[in-house]
Amino acid sequence: MDLRTLIRDVPDFPKKGIMFKDITPLLGHPQALAQAIATISAAHQGLGITKVVGIESRGFIIAPAVALQLGAGFVPIRKPGKLPWKSIKQSYGLEYGTDTVEIHEDSVTSADRVLMVDDVLATGGTMEAAITLVTKVGGQIVGSAFLIDLAFLGGGKRIGGKVFSVVTYT
Amino acid sequence: MDLRTLIRDVPDFPKKGIMFKDITPLLGHPQALAQAIATISAAHQGLGITKVVGIESRGFIIAPAVALQLGAGFVPIRKPGKLPWKSIKQSYGLEYGTDTVEIHEDSVTSADRVLMVDDVLATGGTMEAAITLVTKVGGQIVGSAFLIDLAFLGGGKRIGGKVFSVVTYT
Repeated sequence: MDLRTLIRDVPDFPKKGIMFKDITPLLGHPQALAQAIATISAAHQGLGITKVVGIESRGFIIAPAVALQLGAGFVPIRKPGKLPWKSIKQSYGLEYGTDTVEIHEDSVTSADRVLMVDDVLATGGTMEAAITLVTKVGGQIVGSAFLIDLAFLGGGKRIGGKVFSVVTYT
Repeated sequence: MDLRTLIRDVPDFPKKGIMFKDITPLLGHPQALAQAIATISAAHQGLGITKVVGIESRGFIIAPAVALQLGAGFVPIRKPGKLPWKSIKQSYGLEYGTDTVEIHEDSVTSADRVLMVDDVLATGGTMEAAITLVTKVGGQIVGSAFLIDLAFLGGGKRIGGKVFSVVTYT
């Protein structure tokens, strides 16, 4: 099925001038949800992926389901102060100010081949910081996968490597 | 396998006197992750569940994977201001102050049979508010499922109905 028909445009969210891509109709549709997860998983079979990393919060919706289909484990990257164990952090620039993400030091090892997952690729700042974290703890990045790539924002070039998306807006 | 061996006790997190149950070792272990999701799904097969609702953030890790195995859709309940479409909200009491959760008005209908999912059942305040939201938009609650039930806190009695957990601490 055409997943685009289940992605809803919401103007001026979260602020004026932004056309937000609302994936909740897609997630709520059993066949669409299954198709989206299967598409990401199928594109990454046979690559020896051992860990799928998801970024809080909407990356958590997609990454564990992909991990299950790949026979891999799931690792969360979270906002500051949420992870209970020894963590390292990485800050990155926003339009105004900075944001920070964290990962458990022991969640990924140098033996791990890692797929990075988030819901939407926009400018790529969050994913770039997430890749830095996984690289710092020793993981080998196999690629990054998204439900949606807002390709006109150029995030794919910024993060580099193998970038996969189920739906691309050009 | 015994999933308890992959749940890590972290003392004094997020504040002094709390023994936090860290599920990240379990989530990162492929067989344990698969077993946890399969256990929740198997317990809710054949009940006609059409939507699995997960509560931000850690409920997002579990609920969509369960939804896939049940052939259902996934619906998020989020913190205030995160959902882009028309939403309703519900506040609930914490030890100090209150917190609020929101759901999209159109995410669940009166035709939906709903399984509520979160990672940990503690006092049950968040899940109680989430159940109120789903009931307000018309959904029929089939039950609630958790990876961990801290049964000594009595959350199961508070939320009522059918409560399932993979691991229970008494």
